[in-house]
Amino acid sequence: MTEKPLTDRVVESFAGDDRLSEIMRGLVRHLHDFARDVRLSQAEWDAAITFLTRVGHFTDDRRQEFILLSDVLGLSMLTVGINAPADPDATESTVFGPFFVADSPEVPLGGDITGGAKGTPCWVSGTVRSTSGEPIEGARIDVWEADDDGLYDVQRSSGVAGRGWLRSGARGEYRFWSVRPSPYPIPIDGPVGDLLTAAGRGPMRPAHIHFKVEAPGHRTLITHVFAAGDPYLAEDAVFGVRDSLVAEFAEEEPGTAPDGRAGPWVSLEFDLVLQAE
Amino acid sequence: MTEKPLTDRVVESFAGDDRLSEIMRGLVRHLHDFARDVRLSQAEWDAAITFLTRVGHFTDDRRQEFILLSDVLGLSMLTVGINAPADPDATESTVFGPFFVADSPEVPLGGDITGGAKGTPCWVSGTVRSTSGEPIEGARIDVWEADDDGLYDVQRSSGVAGRGWLRSGARGEYRFWSVRPSPYPIPIDGPVGDLLTAAGRGPMRPAHIHFKVEAPGHRTLITHVFAAGDPYLAEDAVFGVRDSLVAEFAEEEPGTAPDGRAGPWVSLEFDLVLQAE
Ligand SMILES: [Fe+2]
Ligand SMILES: [Fe+2]
Repeated sequence: MTEKPLTDRVVESFAGDDRLSEIMRGLVRHLHDFARDVRLSQAEWDAAITFLTRVGHFTDDRRQEFILLSDVLGLSMLTVGINAPADPDATESTVFGPFFVADSPEVPLGGDITGGAKGTPCWVSGTVRSTSGEPIEGARIDVWEADDDGLYDVQRSSGVAGRGWLRSGARGEYRFWSVRPSPYPIPIDGPVGDLLTAAGRGPMRPAHIHFKVEAPGHRTLITHVFAAGDPYLAEDAVFGVRDSLVAEFAEEEPGTAPDGRAGPWVSLEFDLVLQAE
Repeated sequence: MTEKPLTDRVVESFAGDDRLSEIMRGLVRHLHDFARDVRLSQAEWDAAITFLTRVGHFTDDRRQEFILLSDVLGLSMLTVGINAPADPDATESTVFGPFFVADSPEVPLGGDITGGAKGTPCWVSGTVRSTSGEPIEGARIDVWEADDDGLYDVQRSSGVAGRGWLRSGARGEYRFWSVRPSPYPIPIDGPVGDLLTAAGRGPMRPAHIHFKVEAPGHRTLITHVFAAGDPYLAEDAVFGVRDSLVAEFAEEEPGTAPDGRAGPWVSLEFDLVLQAE
């Protein structure tokens, strides 16, 4: 029974023609190739077991260390890419991240999602349309972002801030006030942080605003818009940056804001293009 | 910054010339190849995160579900193979398993490790020698095994049974009484059991006795001896079987045992050959 190479025997143990068996066969082949390629030692195997055990014990209802691990290995972003819309005219997707909240407050078109978040006021506007160029009315646009301290509201205990949703108008237009987002570190107080430190990798993500855009008949878009010029664009800890998602947060003349407010402000214009389902 | 393919950028993030970085580069390449090969969907990625989270939460001081996962994927056995003695004359290694106990009781040469374990008495004997043929005196031989119910003593609460250690004699000889081992299922009440069930795989291991053999100047041998004719030899749930480790547990004439005991008994003869360090 041991005439066949070990890997073949394990692959054949997942012989079903169902999808799980297909995935497991692929996993076994690549996992074994990995161990053989690096000549994994017994001590290294032990260390991997210990590491995964720590990741498991760090994970609870509020912290998902396995997702963080997938993120820093680029697996989350790769999965996004594999499942991305085929249409090159659609806005590109990026990672969902752990800070989305399903029941955020609705704001009217042109409303303000700041909710006390600290930072320079930022006027965000653009159009939601389909890849054929048709404006999409009534699309639901969820937005969320970190404040000037690089923190999301869910990382504080002070209520909803820098988070909300609105619907696009009759010509697909959307606009809202928020704050200019800041770069922030992913959580590094657990085993994934230890891995990054040991490997000499940084924990920072370049400043971005998260968008989730839903409209009937279209694929839901999950993406960010990144701030042009951010020092971490080339070294996003989770590899989420795509050139097409980088846009200018333009410094505006104080006192010229659309709602007449005083003081400094910035503006971002970004169109959201959805692929038909 | 996104001109390079994602995988290359992740690989380059582990740029160090240390061993950890080398391993991580290999892991990223193979993990990404896996996800691309099977065209991993977002729902499948979600399911993988949920599965690993369950594995993590099932693991505690008494249960190591990550090791069990490594075992059923053949990764544990592959690691044993990668790190095996190069000398083909040495006894082959196999998986260590989760049931070893460091402080088991010593028995004299020819003593009895049964300790109340249920099963047909089994007389085990052989010689410990080096690959050059020299007998090895004073080798420490740890043995442990499941009883007639397929259970190790540590799975019961009734004290040490089917477990002990002895030293080889002046001509490398060893011998002891125990019981004939039985096939047993690996623990299937957790997520790894669910995986096996979903994939249509069985949980059984063929009957075996575990050996750990230590002698100065030699590589420690960790192995099993499997029972010839066992129905599960070709489908060991952890892929630990090697042809050279399968031996006859011979039925003996009742009343002919070396210590004169009455009733049925079996015998196993197996030489343990260690490679120089
Ligand atoms: Fe974010
Ligand atoms: Fe065992």
